[in-house]
Amino acid sequence: MSKAFFLVSAPDRTGLVARFAGFFSRLGLNIVDASNHTEVFSEGAGARFFMRLVVDLAQLVSAEAAAGLGGSTTRRALEDAFAQVAAEVGAEWSVRYGDRLARVAVLVTKEPACLYDLLLRRQSGELPCEIPLILGNHATLEPVAESFRVPFFTLPVSAESKPQQEAAMLDLLRRHHIDLVVLARYMQVLTGEFLAAAPPVINIHHGFLPAFQGARPYHQAYARGVKIIGATAHYATEDLDQGPIIEQDVARVSHAMGPDELVRVGRDVERVVLARAVRAHLERRVFVFGRRTIIL
Amino acid sequence: MSKAFFLVSAPDRTGLVARFAGFFSRLGLNIVDASNHTEVFSEGAGARFFMRLVVDLAQLVSAEAAAGLGGSTTRRALEDAFAQVAAEVGAEWSVRYGDRLARVAVLVTKEPACLYDLLLRRQSGELPCEIPLILGNHATLEPVAESFRVPFFTLPVSAESKPQQEAAMLDLLRRHHIDLVVLARYMQVLTGEFLAAAPPVINIHHGFLPAFQGARPYHQAYARGVKIIGATAHYATEDLDQGPIIEQDVARVSHAMGPDELVRVGRDVERVVLARAVRAHLERRVFVFGRRTIIL
Amino acid sequence: MSKAFFLVSAPDRTGLVARFAGFFSRLGLNIVDASNHTEVFSEGAGARFFMRLVVDLAQLVSAEAAAGLGGSTTRRALEDAFAQVAAEVGAEWSVRYGDRLARVAVLVTKEPACLYDLLLRRQSGELPCEIPLILGNHATLEPVAESFRVPFFTLPVSAESKPQQEAAMLDLLRRHHIDLVVLARYMQVLTGEFLAAAPPVINIHHGFLPAFQGARPYHQAYARGVKIIGATAHYATEDLDQGPIIEQDVARVSHAMGPDELVRVGRDVERVVLARAVRAHLERRVFVFGRRTIIL
Amino acid sequence: MSKAFFLVSAPDRTGLVARFAGFFSRLGLNIVDASNHTEVFSEGAGARFFMRLVVDLAQLVSAEAAAGLGGSTTRRALEDAFAQVAAEVGAEWSVRYGDRLARVAVLVTKEPACLYDLLLRRQSGELPCEIPLILGNHATLEPVAESFRVPFFTLPVSAESKPQQEAAMLDLLRRHHIDLVVLARYMQVLTGEFLAAAPPVINIHHGFLPAFQGARPYHQAYARGVKIIGATAHYATEDLDQGPIIEQDVARVSHAMGPDELVRVGRDVERVVLARAVRAHLERRVFVFGRRTIIL
Repeated sequence: MSKAFFLVSAPDRTGLVARFAGFFSRLGLNIVDASNHTEVFSEGAGARFFMRLVVDLAQLVSAEAAAGLGGSTTRRALEDAFAQVAAEVGAEWSVRYGDRLARVAVLVTKEPACLYDLLLRRQSGELPCEIPLILGNHATLEPVAESFRVPFFTLPVSAESKPQQEAAMLDLLRRHHIDLVVLARYMQVLTGEFLAAAPPVINIHHGFLPAFQGARPYHQAYARGVKIIGATAHYATEDLDQGPIIEQDVARVSHAMGPDELVRVGRDVERVVLARAVRAHLERRVFVFGRRTIIL
Repeated sequence: MSKAFFLVSAPDRTGLVARFAGFFSRLGLNIVDASNHTEVFSEGAGARFFMRLVVDLAQLVSAEAAAGLGGSTTRRALEDAFAQVAAEVGAEWSVRYGDRLARVAVLVTKEPACLYDLLLRRQSGELPCEIPLILGNHATLEPVAESFRVPFFTLPVSAESKPQQEAAMLDLLRRHHIDLVVLARYMQVLTGEFLAAAPPVINIHHGFLPAFQGARPYHQAYARGVKIIGATAHYATEDLDQGPIIEQDVARVSHAMGPDELVRVGRDVERVVLARAVRAHLERRVFVFGRRTIIL
Repeated sequence: MSKAFFLVSAPDRTGLVARFAGFFSRLGLNIVDASNHTEVFSEGAGARFFMRLVVDLAQLVSAEAAAGLGGSTTRRALEDAFAQVAAEVGAEWSVRYGDRLARVAVLVTKEPACLYDLLLRRQSGELPCEIPLILGNHATLEPVAESFRVPFFTLPVSAESKPQQEAAMLDLLRRHHIDLVVLARYMQVLTGEFLAAAPPVINIHHGFLPAFQGARPYHQAYARGVKIIGATAHYATEDLDQGPIIEQDVARVSHAMGPDELVRVGRDVERVVLARAVRAHLERRVFVFGRRTIIL
Repeated sequence: MSKAFFLVSAPDRTGLVARFAGFFSRLGLNIVDASNHTEVFSEGAGARFFMRLVVDLAQLVSAEAAAGLGGSTTRRALEDAFAQVAAEVGAEWSVRYGDRLARVAVLVTKEPACLYDLLLRRQSGELPCEIPLILGNHATLEPVAESFRVPFFTLPVSAESKPQQEAAMLDLLRRHHIDLVVLARYMQVLTGEFLAAAPPVINIHHGFLPAFQGARPYHQAYARGVKIIGATAHYATEDLDQGPIIEQDVARVSHAMGPDELVRVGRDVERVVLARAVRAHLERRVFVFGRRTIIL
């Protein structure tokens, strides 16, 4: 079954659920999954409506669909028709197709745990994506990439060479048609220029944001004597550690654990949080709205 | 804003989201919240579709609604029209109105914690209901009822008097127009006859079902040496501790805690689990489907 | 069984466990529970040793104890002898006796949930203390105090009257021989002068410190789009929301919950966190060491 | 720093903490960590005392230690002396040394996740052990073993060949001086004969025991409609899924997740639970007492 994932958002008004669901219904296309949310607390603006529709395309070739789409039954015709319906209510929208796997690049430095984790989850089918590219600012993890037969490029970086290194990364991302970048403990800050030019970037912060921003969050957590630590997966933005949060989770700790043990406990949380965030993105569940995300 | 909560379920087929959403859309009624789920793993049957629609009734008096409803704009007319749409696809459905608070009876024995908890949550507005009746098989908690000014009836029960006692309870439930019964540590088993005649009954089991069914679950948990305990809120059925689960939660424990301490830790879990389950029921979010619940 | 709770801390060195355990052993007193921790990461200082000993005093009247204590078998004699052992290794220590219940004052404003919770937990025996005094800056909760037959004093406060109001509170705390003050959603900042003169003060912050310090933490959490919220119980210090953390816990939330719903979910976390912190304090488990607590 | 880990248990009586701590103190050996627990609810028996002592052996060569040990300062002399102290109070005890890494064999079938996880945690230093042997009843995971350069033996098994296969496994465990066996999703039941002859065996059950024993626990969990699933690490015993529980953890699920998704969510819990259990065992924290474990 080939599926289309439509994400749409619009200023709230009467009849939006029926409008978007009805569009597919009139074409005889089955809505496999539909969910929606109305965000009412956004400052300085009215309420905003968000909807995710998963549509079975099997009947796209039917006479009913053809009639509704003016004779054509291509995906392009479907998109054009949906664009009209969306425009009538000032909606923004996008669509992805389930038979076109997202292409994910992983950026790493030296720590292997998150990289292994992503590769194994892809291998087991848990992450519906390809991973055609791994980039490291060190060569340390090249053997891991090799054992999974993924191309690995080492692009060392220094304060002076950062513009050139980021340009080289962008070039590789483009050549490999990358849709999503995942920072798997990539220990470099990315510039606003890079982020503006790159596909979406998901980062894992090993702290329970917004507490413990910046460096060495587990040492900060130890010094403050917290009883629970956490990790946060978020879209990378120019403001370090301020991007929209996709997923968080926590683990209980005690006074008896030193900073190293917090690191160890936290590592388990990080991996799971990052995997859940990447999966939510790949399943087309995530809307970004200001500093918040809506996960449908 | 007066709201209607429509719950509907039907054998799955193309176009159900659009069908039900479209019904309200054509009447000019705004769908405040809509969610749906398709249950595909039910044994021996095809997939089944579930949908919850929260509808703003403000425009029910409009010309648009009147036209769609054949001139009448009463709730009865709305229900009759919806019944037709539902019948076309073999759907079961029900509706409740937000301006008609559910009437909840609480059954207790001697432990005050859960009773206080329900009364305080109602008082704070967290539970959208009235509590016009408290029944105890002991008189112990009558002063609590009094301090919240709720009528309390003591109905002692023994093995011999159970039929009479349950009949008396049913009579009181009917006279007070009770919609929901909550067992707040009511230490008696209810008969199938009672449950068949009574409104829905929510029970809190102080164990992490299906582990530790039956009596003294915390002592069972201690003997088995589990590292996590829990509580389960479920609809009461004739099969003790087998009813559809509405909500569960857990707490971590250690070898150092004796049975009494498990009871104490568990009590905090019980109260929260029971409150969440009652709230989900009152917000009309719960579908029962075989032994499972679907919470939309 | 009458028990003594000894808390002792000292610069770390060889033989401290044996030293303190041996002291009671030589007197023939049974150590019911012993636990210790060595804090090795404290900045600018060597490691520090912490130990909690729970001692059964039943044999304090024995000849063996008398011999070891120079003939006297009073608690005072026991304390004097322990003081000597402690002094030899530069230890700080304190002792409390289980047959002398701590006296706890609760400070409130208008919200009843935390107050009810503390009173009910004391009533059920979960909190080993007396609650002989409730103070409010509003009279709202006086009926709650009355229904539990606890004296309630209303002490209104304004910016100008704060010194006088705090002086009046201190006077009442002294007259009632209060050992611990619990802020149960007391919506006033206490001055450094008050905190210096008062017994220990435990506060519940309805945020997952150190994130969301200050006012309206749930609204901050909503705006930041976090996926988990929490509550923090800590000793009150002059630096608002910076005191040593005793206990924290969290609950998962979603984009679909508005600020009010976060408040509701958080309230359940707050009550449990506050109760656990107060209980740990009353059981004499908490050491404060700089900004951290050690819970033995 | 070379450390010794002493585990001791005995019928409870006065002075045990002082007795065991004093033994090391008199020898001038520093107790790095000490913890104890008294189990008071065991049926049909008096209370039992458990203690874990971590002792720094640096001063074992000192004159003070030599004097206390009758002239010898070998580990054997230390053990002999401790055995005497233990015998006086009828204690059972054991000792392990930190400079002698435990040797762990992993048994697998076809699923790679748990195996990778254990190998990576060992590599990162999180699990203080060697992994000199991997045994599979299928050859599927041999390449994983190879990429970590660990010997892998394939020992196929059928109902008829089970005695021979288990004998071959025992032989390999002996030849490789294995101290601990970990079942990383090894999909075979081990016989009582094997378990009696083998070193301790830790198993991960992908269900929240004691609920959902036996096969396909996630499918059972789905059918029962639970709202939380879990995993359990326990010592394997002849009674399937009945061995003493070392560690458990849970994850929240919803009606929307089918059995496959429960498997996926559960897999993350399994790995963490298994790793924590193995680590607790390797750090010599686990006492088995009847059907319960005590983790100090």
